[in-house]
Parts: sequence; C-alpha cells; structure tokens
Amino acid sequence: MQMSDLDQWLKERNLNGHWNRQPGLPKVEPYLWKWADIHEGLQTAGEVVPMDKTGRRTIQMRNPSLPAGMTHTIHISVQLVKPGEIARAHRHVAGAIRYVIKGAPNAFTIVEGERFAMEEGDLITTPNWTWHDHFNGSNEPVMWLDGLDVRLVGYLGAQFQQNYVKEQQPIEKPDGYSTKIHGRARPNWIKSTHATPPFRYQWKETYATLSALKESDGNPYDGILLEYVNPFTGGSTLPTYSCEIQLLRPTEKTRAHRHTSTVVYQAFRGEGVTVIEGQRYEWGQGDIFVVPPWRSHSHENRTSADAILFSITDRPSAAALGLYREEAVEV
Amino acid sequence: MQMSDLDQWLKERNLNGHWNRQPGLPKVEPYLWKWADIHEGLQTAGEVVPMDKTGRRTIQMRNPSLPAGMTHTIHISVQLVKPGEIARAHRHVAGAIRYVIKGAPNAFTIVEGERFAMEEGDLITTPNWTWHDHFNGSNEPVMWLDGLDVRLVGYLGAQFQQNYVKEQQPIEKPDGYSTKIHGRARPNWIKSTHATPPFRYQWKETYATLSALKESDGNPYDGILLEYVNPFTGGSTLPTYSCEIQLLRPTEKTRAHRHTSTVVYQAFRGEGVTVIEGQRYEWGQGDIFVVPPWRSHSHENRTSADAILFSITDRPSAAALGLYREEAVEV
Amino acid sequence: MQMSDLDQWLKERNLNGHWNRQPGLPKVEPYLWKWADIHEGLQTAGEVVPMDKTGRRTIQMRNPSLPAGMTHTIHISVQLVKPGEIARAHRHVAGAIRYVIKGAPNAFTIVEGERFAMEEGDLITTPNWTWHDHFNGSNEPVMWLDGLDVRLVGYLGAQFQQNYVKEQQPIEKPDGYSTKIHGRARPNWIKSTHATPPFRYQWKETYATLSALKESDGNPYDGILLEYVNPFTGGSTLPTYSCEIQLLRPTEKTRAHRHTSTVVYQAFRGEGVTVIEGQRYEWGQGDIFVVPPWRSHSHENRTSADAILFSITDRPSAAALGLYREEAVEV
Amino acid sequence: MQMSDLDQWLKERNLNGHWNRQPGLPKVEPYLWKWADIHEGLQTAGEVVPMDKTGRRTIQMRNPSLPAGMTHTIHISVQLVKPGEIARAHRHVAGAIRYVIKGAPNAFTIVEGERFAMEEGDLITTPNWTWHDHFNGSNEPVMWLDGLDVRLVGYLGAQFQQNYVKEQQPIEKPDGYSTKIHGRARPNWIKSTHATPPFRYQWKETYATLSALKESDGNPYDGILLEYVNPFTGGSTLPTYSCEIQLLRPTEKTRAHRHTSTVVYQAFRGEGVTVIEGQRYEWGQGDIFVVPPWRSHSHENRTSADAILFSITDRPSAAALGLYREEAVEV
Repeated sequence: MQMSDLDQWLKERNLNGHWNRQPGLPKVEPYLWKWADIHEGLQTAGEVVPMDKTGRRTIQMRNPSLPAGMTHTIHISVQLVKPGEIARAHRHVAGAIRYVIKGAPNAFTIVEGERFAMEEGDLITTPNWTWHDHFNGSNEPVMWLDGLDVRLVGYLGAQFQQNYVKEQQPIEKPDGYSTKIHGRARPNWIKSTHATPPFRYQWKETYATLSALKESDGNPYDGILLEYVNPFTGGSTLPTYSCEIQLLRPTEKTRAHRHTSTVVYQAFRGEGVTVIEGQRYEWGQGDIFVVPPWRSHSHENRTSADAILFSITDRPSAAALGLYREEAVEV
Repeated sequence: MQMSDLDQWLKERNLNGHWNRQPGLPKVEPYLWKWADIHEGLQTAGEVVPMDKTGRRTIQMRNPSLPAGMTHTIHISVQLVKPGEIARAHRHVAGAIRYVIKGAPNAFTIVEGERFAMEEGDLITTPNWTWHDHFNGSNEPVMWLDGLDVRLVGYLGAQFQQNYVKEQQPIEKPDGYSTKIHGRARPNWIKSTHATPPFRYQWKETYATLSALKESDGNPYDGILLEYVNPFTGGSTLPTYSCEIQLLRPTEKTRAHRHTSTVVYQAFRGEGVTVIEGQRYEWGQGDIFVVPPWRSHSHENRTSADAILFSITDRPSAAALGLYREEAVEV
Repeated sequence: MQMSDLDQWLKERNLNGHWNRQPGLPKVEPYLWKWADIHEGLQTAGEVVPMDKTGRRTIQMRNPSLPAGMTHTIHISVQLVKPGEIARAHRHVAGAIRYVIKGAPNAFTIVEGERFAMEEGDLITTPNWTWHDHFNGSNEPVMWLDGLDVRLVGYLGAQFQQNYVKEQQPIEKPDGYSTKIHGRARPNWIKSTHATPPFRYQWKETYATLSALKESDGNPYDGILLEYVNPFTGGSTLPTYSCEIQLLRPTEKTRAHRHTSTVVYQAFRGEGVTVIEGQRYEWGQGDIFVVPPWRSHSHENRTSADAILFSITDRPSAAALGLYREEAVEV
Repeated sequence: MQMSDLDQWLKERNLNGHWNRQPGLPKVEPYLWKWADIHEGLQTAGEVVPMDKTGRRTIQMRNPSLPAGMTHTIHISVQLVKPGEIARAHRHVAGAIRYVIKGAPNAFTIVEGERFAMEEGDLITTPNWTWHDHFNGSNEPVMWLDGLDVRLVGYLGAQFQQNYVKEQQPIEKPDGYSTKIHGRARPNWIKSTHATPPFRYQWKETYATLSALKESDGNPYDGILLEYVNPFTGGSTLPTYSCEIQLLRPTEKTRAHRHTSTVVYQAFRGEGVTVIEGQRYEWGQGDIFVVPPWRSHSHENRTSADAILFSITDRPSAAALGLYREEAVEV
C-alpha cells in the first residue's frame, strides 16, 4: 500500500493522517467599511424595510475574508430606530453593547426594567441574558453601533435567545438606578441579579477624563486610551470583551505593536490612518475597521484636531484562557 | 504529687496545664464618648499643645474595658489642624482614613504627591505605606476623624513607620488625578503604585446617593447603608477594614443583629439611640461609640429629621480569614 | 428601491441587512469512530509512513459535519511510536494531553527537561508553550490518545509553534520530579516556570480511587466520574479543558443531561451505549465519540463487567467566559 | 491650663492626647521550652489529672513575655491520651492541627465522621467548626502537638465552641475517604461541606518528598522546607496559618532573614541551634521554640545526622491582610 492509498482508505472512514494537512480555519483579514456606505444603506433600509420584517433594523459588516460575519469573535452592526419605533424586547446569552452615534432626548435602551437614555457617545451594556428593548420617543432618528460576542458564543455552542412575552418590558426602576447603586459608596443590601450589571457610561464623563489626561504621556501604542470597566469588579466591560476609547492628539503617531486579540474600531471623531502590517487604512468619522490577531498596527492622527476611536477587543477572552500575548514591533 | 503541686512545677518552667485556665484577652465593651468632651479637649489642646510637642494634634478614644486603645483592631482619634499648620509627612504600614468633620477651602491631605481637598463629609484614604501629610492653608481650624487599623497591624507584628525627609512632600500630580484615573472609563497605561490607591470620596456624591435611595427598603439592620468601595477592585475600602455611611430616616428603627466584627460609629448628622445588648446609647452629632463583636445591636432615629452615622468596620479582616458570621437577633 | 435591490447594493459593499440572515457556523454533530479502523490505519501508517515524512505519526478524527477537525475546540488523534523512534521536540501555544492506550517500559514523553514514563492508562500533560518530545526505547510499539485545544486556540488567533534546536531536549530533572514538587507537602523554594506545570497522573492511582469509590452513589449523569485536577491550583487539568475518567458499574445506566460544553470520549475498558438526543452510539474498547454542546446524553453499561470512559471536555473555557449552563433532561 | 492638667482632664473622660503615649501591646519575645520538662509534666499529668477534670490532657507553653499564651496568634500545647481514653467530641471556630509525636496502631482522631490514623510524624487537620474527638484504642500512650489559631480568633471576637451531644461522634465514612476524594483525579459529585476539608498528611509521604529533594539547593533560609498545602486549593494548610516541615542536612547552616510572621517550631529529629537576633537557642528532639515577627533568624544543624523541624506560621493571615513582608539579613 502507498501513502496515497492509505489516505483514501482513511478518508472513507472519516479519519486523516497527520502528514496530510487539513484546511485550517479561514483567517480574518483587515478590512475597512466606509461610513458613507453604511449610512446610506441604513437610510434606505429605514425607507424600505418595515420593522415587522426584521427584528432589528441593522446593517452588519461582512468581512470578505470569512464565509460569514466580521471577525471570529465580535460581531458589529449599526442600528437605526426611527421616531416612535420599538425594537422589541428579547434576551440572549451573547452580551451586547450600544455605542451611540446619534442620540435623541427621548430615546432609551431598557435593560432589566431600567431606562437608559441614549446621548451621542454614550456606551450602554446589555450583558449576557439580560432582557432589553429599545424605544425612540423623539421625533428624530437615532443610530448606534451594536457590538456582540455572538460569534464566539455560537462557536462554543452556548448561544440561546428568547423573546419577551410582550413587545416592551415594564419600567420597574427609577432613572439613574444603576449609576446610584454602583457609585463609590454603595448600598450593601442591593445585589445585582447579574454578575455583570447593565450600565450606562455617559459621554460627558468619558470625555472629561479624556480631556483631563490630554497632557499625559499616554499609551505608546494607543495614545490616551481608556478602558470602560465593569462597575462591580473593576475588570473588563463584559466577561468576554472590553470596550475602549482613545484620543489621538493632533499629529500624534503611535508606535506599532501586535497582540493575540482582535480589535474592531469605529472612528468617532476626526480622521487619521491606521497602518496594519504595512498597509494603510485611512479613516474618517463613522468608518469601521478591523485589526486581526497578531497583526502589527499603529495609529496616526494627521490633522490638527483631536481624533477619537471607539473600539471593542476580545482581549479578556484570550486572557481568561491563558492565551494573551502582546509585543512591540519595530518598523 | 497533687494537681496543685504539678501546677506549681509547671509554672516554674513556663508551662501550664489545660485544666488550669489562663486569663483570656480583655473583652472589648461598648462605650460612648460625647462630642462636647472631645471638642473641648481638642480646643484646649489647640491652645496648650504646640505642634513640635506632638506629631499630630489628636485626641484618642480610650476604651475603659481595655488596657490601651479603643478596640482590638480599629483605632480612632479626632485631629485639629489650625490655620497655617502642617502635620508633617510620614508613612506607616497601618492604613488610615480621614472623615472630615470641619473642612476649609485651602485645607489638604497630601498623599503620594497628590493634594486632596477636605470638605465636610469627605472621606480620604491613606492606604498602607503611602506618604501623607496635612496642611491647613485657610484661616479657620479644620478637624477630622482619623481611623487606623494600627492595633491589628501591631498585634500581627507588621507595623513600621518612617518620617519623610522633609516636613512636606512635593505636589507631583494635578488635582483630581485619582478621580480621573479611577473613573468608569480608565487609562490603561497608568497603574497605581499601591494595590489600594489613595482616594477621596466627596460628600456631595455620597449624599446624592443616600438621597436617591431614601425611598428604598434599605437594609433591615442598618437603614440606607452605603459601603465606600476601593475604586480599583470594587471591594472593601482598605484590605483590613471598610468605611460605611448610613442614613436613618425620621423615626426609622432597625432590626437587631450581631456579627463577628467590631464597628466604630460617629454621628455625623442628627440624633438617635443605639441599643447594644439591651443597653441604650443615646447619641447626638459628633458622638463616637463602639459596638464590640457578637453584640446584638439596633439603631433608632427618634427625631423628625434625617440622622446619619459614619462607621468603620473590621469585617473585611474577619472575612479574609474565614471568620465572619452574622445573624439576626429577635428581641 | 426594493428590499432585494438593497440587499444587492449592500452585498457589493460587504454589508448585510439583519433581515437577510447570514449562514451560521457549521454545527458539530455526534459521531463515533471505531477502534478497529483507527488501529488498522495506524498499523498501516507504521508501515508506509516514515517519520521524516510527518512530524508525528498520528491518525486524526474527522467529523463529517465540519469542514475540518473533530469539534470546534478539542482536536483528537491517536499516535504510534515504534521501537527506537523519536517524535521530535517542539512546543506550541495549544495545550496537549496524552492518554496512554499501549505503554512500554522505556517509552517516555519528555516535558521541560523531565522524563514521564508511559504506562497504560497514564495521563500526561504538556501544557501551553512547554517543550516536549517522545521516545520509545522499548522493543514494542506504544500508542496513545493525543488531545489538544488547537482548534479553539487557532480560532482565537493565538496559536504559535516552534521546533527545538535539536531532535530531543536534554533530560535535566530527576525522574518523578513533578510528582515530588507537587505533593501534599511542597517545597516552597521551587516555583514552576509555567502557570500549569506538566504532570503525570498514574493509572494505578487513578484506578485505586475509582475502585475505592465504587460503592458510592456517584454522579447521576456520569457514574463514578473523576476530574484530573491541576496539581498547583486544584482547578481544571489545563486552563481551557479538563480530562475526566468515569467508571460505569455493571448494568449501570445514567440519567440524561445536557450542557454548553463539548465532550470527546474514548472507551478505555468494556463496552456500552451512549444515547445522544435519542440516537444510540454503541461503543467497545478504543472507540472514540463526540457529544456536541447542549445535546441530551446518557450512558449505559450493558455488560456485567466495569466499563471505563476517558474524556476531554471544554467546560473550563465555557465557565471562564461566563457561558457554562447545564440541566437535567427528562426522557 | 498646662498640658499636664489637660492630660488629667482628658483621662477623666476616657480620652487621651496623642502626645501622651499609651502603652503598646506586649511584645512577643523568643523562648525555648525543653522537651524533658514538657514530657515529665505530661507524664505526671497522666498520673494525677483524670480526664473528667479537664476536657483535654494537655500541657501548654507559656511565653513569659506575654500575660497569657505563647504568641499573639498561634497557641501550642502537647497532648497525652492514655490507652482506652477518649478526648470528647467538640468543635470550635479556631482551626487546629495535630502533629503526632508518638502514635499507636489503634489511635484515631475522628473529624466529621471520618477516622484518621495517628502515626508518628503524621499531620492531621481539624479545620474551623469541624466536629472532632480523639480515641486511643491501643495499649500504649499517644502524644501529639496541638496547634491552634485560637489567640487570633479570640482577638477578632470570632471564637465559639460547642460540645457534641455525645462523647464520641459516629464513624460515617470509610477509612481513607478524604485522601480518596482529594486525589489527583477527583470525584466531581462530592463537595466538601467545609471550605477547608480535614486531611491527614502521612509521614511516610512527607518523608519521601524530603528525602527525594535532599540533593536540591533548597531554600537559603530554611533548607529543604515543605509547606503542607490544602488539598482543595493548593494554598495554605488552613486559612489563617500553614504548617511546614524542614530538613537541615548534616552541618547545614542557613542564611538569616526576618518576616512579619510568627513561627513556632518543634524539633522532630536531631539537634541544632537557631540564632535569633544574635541569641543562640540550642534545640534537641521535642524542644519547642518561638521566633517572633521581624526578628532575624537562621538555623544550623551541627551534627552529622539529619535534623528535622516541624513548624507553624501565621504568614497566611499577614498575607491575606496585605501585611506580609520578608527580607534577608546580613550578619
């Protein structure tokens, strides 16, 4: 018998020899989506896609290097809710965040019986298995970035989803409840019913911190970068991923590094360029791009105004499994 | 030989039979100190005790049930710093807190190169081995409660103390630095040089949380009780003890409980009574009292105004060693 | 514009509407591989595949429900090393275990400078990034089950691999070193250079525990099931997965349950049947089968002799990410 | 008013000025008790002290530097149980260990329904709140060292004690149960009812590890030192303290160091000298001595035979509270 005969014999029995290399997983490649496209697509969807044809009116990023999805772990889309519309109540194991691109005074995400106002730049979490719905009570459209760990959760076979019995859940807590119970001095008789409680990180506070630190050295690879921490533990935003915001000062250019985590960015303010393995990705406000694991990358703000990037990283998953590595890259 | 002969024989050799019970540790008993006395003593000290005769101008509580100190673990005193005075820079393993009774605009505690303003009701921590000094740049006296775990640290043989080379340490950080770096979104390139960073909990924020929760059920044993959490970990204020603040609503009367931790209280606002093992301890503003371990106690606000108690508990030490127990007491 | 026009427009821009469902990940389905096939394939490979044509002489399981591999997380193969052969030294981020099917007196796995003897039923770990090679110094072939988290590690973009400078690493530690330093009383001056140290779990000890517990109630879903614990932490065998061994007593039939983790089994002794979602998978010694996440399953030993299953579960990964769920299933 | 008048005025109100230093806690000083004395006292007690006059027939060490007890944290005594005697069943919050000086074939410590045989050199734990009693079913006396954290537990106000309803608790578990369920491969359906399970560390295993490591460099301050680890967690023997055993090779002389923990030693084999802050403490088999916190100390075996010291250290308590420090001392 020859090796090739053996290969055939094994194949018929769903076996394979080590010497006969199997195809690996598709590799995630860098990609950048233009806001103009996303926005136009979303506007059109607002006109031609009624809410009863889709659970959520969202436009998803499709990474051409993958059979489906944007990355192996984090899934990103942009959502539009028009005046008077409801995105109905449900819950799922995948943990989600909303980063508000365009807010409005009476637009709310409701999580576990509490309303969270949605103003531009706010970050709102709807952790693993929390009931949530959205409502736009203003007369302007609202839009936000949705980030979910649904690819990873699905990969591990742990994704479940349920619709709430009604379209909306009742409001059972006063406004600001989560902020109050997770303050620096905290009620000791109230325990969150979830290990990771829902939380709203207000832009005005985030921006105040960014501004206050503008004169600091900052992070050599990322400028003035802040991580949104879980108010309960001081750890990552959600158990599987963290959200971060970084300010690149006028003409700031960071050093290059690489790490075993995937990062998805959205330009929130200004414009600049991110160099990924020598390839330049130029971004303006609203553009979305992905840096795959272990790819060298650096950022540059080429204007005289601040540039701000919002991002989502699966670093907490890698770290929890003993798989996180990071190193500087000389270029 | 008789048992009594054996006892004598053993005693001469620094041995002892189990049947011949040795004296136990002195038991901590409840006690209440009146603010009028503390205040008058402190005023007089301000007149007759110059700063060069004492490192700190403080009046300590002396528990008559003990050979020295106030409790076995927590040590309490009240400090006065007059206009222009400096309480010179030092550090010690014992972790300390300051709870401001009377603040002033230019009075500061300086910790690890950062100034912390001292306004009435503020809590400021100077954790284990952090350099700290105090300065009163106003033209009014300032006063605060000092709380330290120095009895416990000394008992375990771990107390060390050092004077700074100068009277005051230099200011090396901008005002508000700690608040900024421990916000909800946090710089990831700044690491505290201490496991427990220094922190100022402003009264206006603490009071806002207390007020917001006034309609809640609260804690059955303690009313609207908040625990000051370590901004890094979400855990106890310091590794060995926690600070708490509780609001007793008009005429509120709590249920009785007991626990294996010592609590020291100071009445910050209003008046009321705490019943400890059937004995009534009536308190008014500024009074200080101690509830020893495993003594049943309940609180009552007998007025039509809010009453607020500040307290320090060694519960984190008991919990860390697997020794914490708590139970309701029917009375 | 129609929805279908919009879909096309979006597709051209690598975008997608939520209403237009993208293909999900391929689902892992149950499958059983017969030992007779595996063994015959391995024997033939021993004849026709020289070691210089393949790094390792292993036969891998191919799950027909997936484009490649056996499960999304754990990868299984069976390895043959003939007398005098060396499987050369390398290391990789993926953590591996060896479960010995056929041992021999002078066969060794060498990990980080320590020889681990390979006797039937022994489990040997080569954790994340530890140098390892294998050598068969006897005159009989040796065979074992290889288990790796390489699919999961690759999915997260964290897989790296290096060859050692020579074919074999030098032996630098005395035999039994790991067992000695991880005993019940442990040297405090030796720290493992890896968070998870390599370890050999001898079959004679494992079997003694299984035997001693034969009269116990056992686990209702799994009989007398033991988890191999990390000798340092008492936690899972490796950070991402655990190995387990379970004895099903004569005629024992377990209750059904399901959980959000994948389990791969090899029948080590005896024969029985595992019912997965109503489908019967009959197994005899050496057979390998997979139970995908959230599939109801129960085991039955239909003989009058003990049956023993060795298994690998990715439960620790699901748990570390807050994704583990388990429930009984009534059938 | 003068300062001295103020001091008097304050004293009458149970207050004290910081300038008027209060007495500190008594300092623990080194001391050594000779085995000849302990043994003779215990023998005499066996003759003149009946079991109904004393719960336990033990001789306690009395440190002359303290008003009571041996150290501030650990309490040591030596116990004698004569043939046929029972030390009746009770439990207490203080965690205890027994280190067997003289065992016998039918002597047992019973903990939570399980019998633990008592052979020379065995260590048996009876953790916090576990029922335990002792029975000597042989026709020879048995003796052991008792170590408890009762001083520390009492200091924190957490000590409770209960007698069992009968003199002895029933045996409800098979011999060797704890060893089996805490093996390297562990039943996952059995959970200890205590965070720290009772455990017997057999001398023959401990000695095998000591012997195997005799050629190692060892710990520069302590020779071949092993820490008895909690079989559940891999951490300290009990939450508040650890037991350790160290072998000093013929003529071995260690370097000096000091640390913020108290250590109590008993010479188990051989003879030597421990130098504490320049003072020599010569010890022979059975002698007991104490090294207080932050005192420089080094050990020397001056014979040509091995010397073995058993010890108990409160280091885990100091570490849990952030108070542990250690440093080498040049002498």
